[in-house]
Amino acid sequence: MIPTITKQHISVFAPATVANLSCGFDVLGTCLDNVGDPMRIDIEPCQNFEIEISKITGANLPYEPEKNVVGVAIKALQESYQKKYPNAQPFKATVEIHKKIKAGSGIGSSAASSTGAVYGVNKLLGDIFDKVELISFAMEGERLASGNAHADNVAPALLGGFSLVRSYTPLDVIKLHTPKDLYITVIHPQIEVKTADSRAVLKQKVNLKNAIHQWGNLGGFIAGLYSEDYKLMSRSLQDVIVEPLRSILIPKFQEVKQASLDKGALGCGISGSGPSIYALSKGIETAQSVQKAMENIYSKTQIPFDIHVSKINTEGIKITERS
Amino acid sequence: MIPTITKQHISVFAPATVANLSCGFDVLGTCLDNVGDPMRIDIEPCQNFEIEISKITGANLPYEPEKNVVGVAIKALQESYQKKYPNAQPFKATVEIHKKIKAGSGIGSSAASSTGAVYGVNKLLGDIFDKVELISFAMEGERLASGNAHADNVAPALLGGFSLVRSYTPLDVIKLHTPKDLYITVIHPQIEVKTADSRAVLKQKVNLKNAIHQWGNLGGFIAGLYSEDYKLMSRSLQDVIVEPLRSILIPKFQEVKQASLDKGALGCGISGSGPSIYALSKGIETAQSVQKAMENIYSKTQIPFDIHVSKINTEGIKITERS
Repeated sequence: MIPTITKQHISVFAPATVANLSCGFDVLGTCLDNVGDPMRIDIEPCQNFEIEISKITGANLPYEPEKNVVGVAIKALQESYQKKYPNAQPFKATVEIHKKIKAGSGIGSSAASSTGAVYGVNKLLGDIFDKVELISFAMEGERLASGNAHADNVAPALLGGFSLVRSYTPLDVIKLHTPKDLYITVIHPQIEVKTADSRAVLKQKVNLKNAIHQWGNLGGFIAGLYSEDYKLMSRSLQDVIVEPLRSILIPKFQEVKQASLDKGALGCGISGSGPSIYALSKGIETAQSVQKAMENIYSKTQIPFDIHVSKINTEGIKITERS
Repeated sequence: MIPTITKQHISVFAPATVANLSCGFDVLGTCLDNVGDPMRIDIEPCQNFEIEISKITGANLPYEPEKNVVGVAIKALQESYQKKYPNAQPFKATVEIHKKIKAGSGIGSSAASSTGAVYGVNKLLGDIFDKVELISFAMEGERLASGNAHADNVAPALLGGFSLVRSYTPLDVIKLHTPKDLYITVIHPQIEVKTADSRAVLKQKVNLKNAIHQWGNLGGFIAGLYSEDYKLMSRSLQDVIVEPLRSILIPKFQEVKQASLDKGALGCGISGSGPSIYALSKGIETAQSVQKAMENIYSKTQIPFDIHVSKINTEGIKITERS
């Protein structure tokens, strides 16, 4: 059935996410609860397909749709819509973005925006696209932001909880069982780590022995999630491939990691491609004492930082208002 | 408490296993139900620690304990026993081995023997060693057999079901949730694939991209086991690293794989380091039609073969008699 376009709007809360979770480089991410961007999306019938970014607060981002991840993601959606319904009514999407997640922080700032946009438009169109389609549209935003259409921020932002990108071709994303008592602490040191630099330190080839170690750990972590075995999750949260190379770009990384583990965190590693550092904990008390320990270390430097403690958000993106 | 040694015996059924399961190279194995070796283990008090292999049927294997995986595994157990209880009564272990699993078949022949031996002795000593200790003793047998103390046959033989070797140092082995309706078909073409050859084709370095693909699949397979999502297991049973290199050593591998998938198998790959080929299926009917398809292909060659269909054994090694 061809969707009917009427003038309507929706407001959503697009959550921050932690991707590249230790042993799950490029495939494993999780979703935060109280850190994210409010967005408002309007649609209305129109002569041609249009996109307008009408308001941006909290960040200095381009309003031109083709230069903003939001515009690029919605464009991918509109193109797919036209293919699916060649005779359908064109529509204009208008988006307000209120950035709370700092760009370049490594907690999925661009993924929140592109996911929020396509999620909102799809709701207003009557849920015509499935989750995999929405993820693939939002990944176009990621491609604009980082040159690489990765899915490990977009998927948890949309699905909530821990999610696994099993495969990119074809795209196959799995929402993993997520125990209720998991909290994340994320510190964002406000230094710039250029994506190009964090990529340059990676090696194209890795030792088979290390790769085996890594997939043993990822398997262990996922088994730990499903069996709610926190000790197993903890033993498994190791990254022998990427962290040794990238952590040198993040000041105080080893100190923060050691202090977090000393305070009882299940694991600690780089969030995304950095510079943020995440720690996963069982229970809010542990997550808060990890927060204090991280703050304590960074307070002694000249580097400004943000720090968040959040329950793992098992729902993903949320509708806050609709009419 | 120091164990009391009395003259007693136990008989066990030591199961065959499939290791290196596709995406789980070196870390994932599973256990067969109706294929395995009957063994009898006796212990009695003695002046010094002794090991005797009193009878071997079904295979031409050395009786000298230091040349037989059974002797080597029991010796590791005895040494640990002496460390644990320096003043304990020494004992002699006598073992009968009735080999049904052909050596060199790639379905854990040596692992069955070494695991059966240490499991039996431990039962007679009153269960003084835990599973990780028993696995580490049996791994010494594996070291003798293949030059490499791997655990991915030993662990499922002992634990049953699918098991994950999360880490080798320290040894950390996890029994994964295993759905009830899984069956395995294994064909053993009776050709010799030398361990040295199957090792030589492996590369020390792998592409990071392929490694990511592999750990995404292993994560997907384990999520599939826990959520009993057979389609997800099926999509995940891919090996982009080892199978492309090793399968060329196995005649008709691609034909057997394609025919198995055509008959509805969830996945198909090399068992262990070959030459056996396994296929995993949901339900015995599918496993049996996979069997017919495999037989059909190999019947047209001059290569003799064995073929087995087995339910996944979720218990592991079994006691068949004790007195």
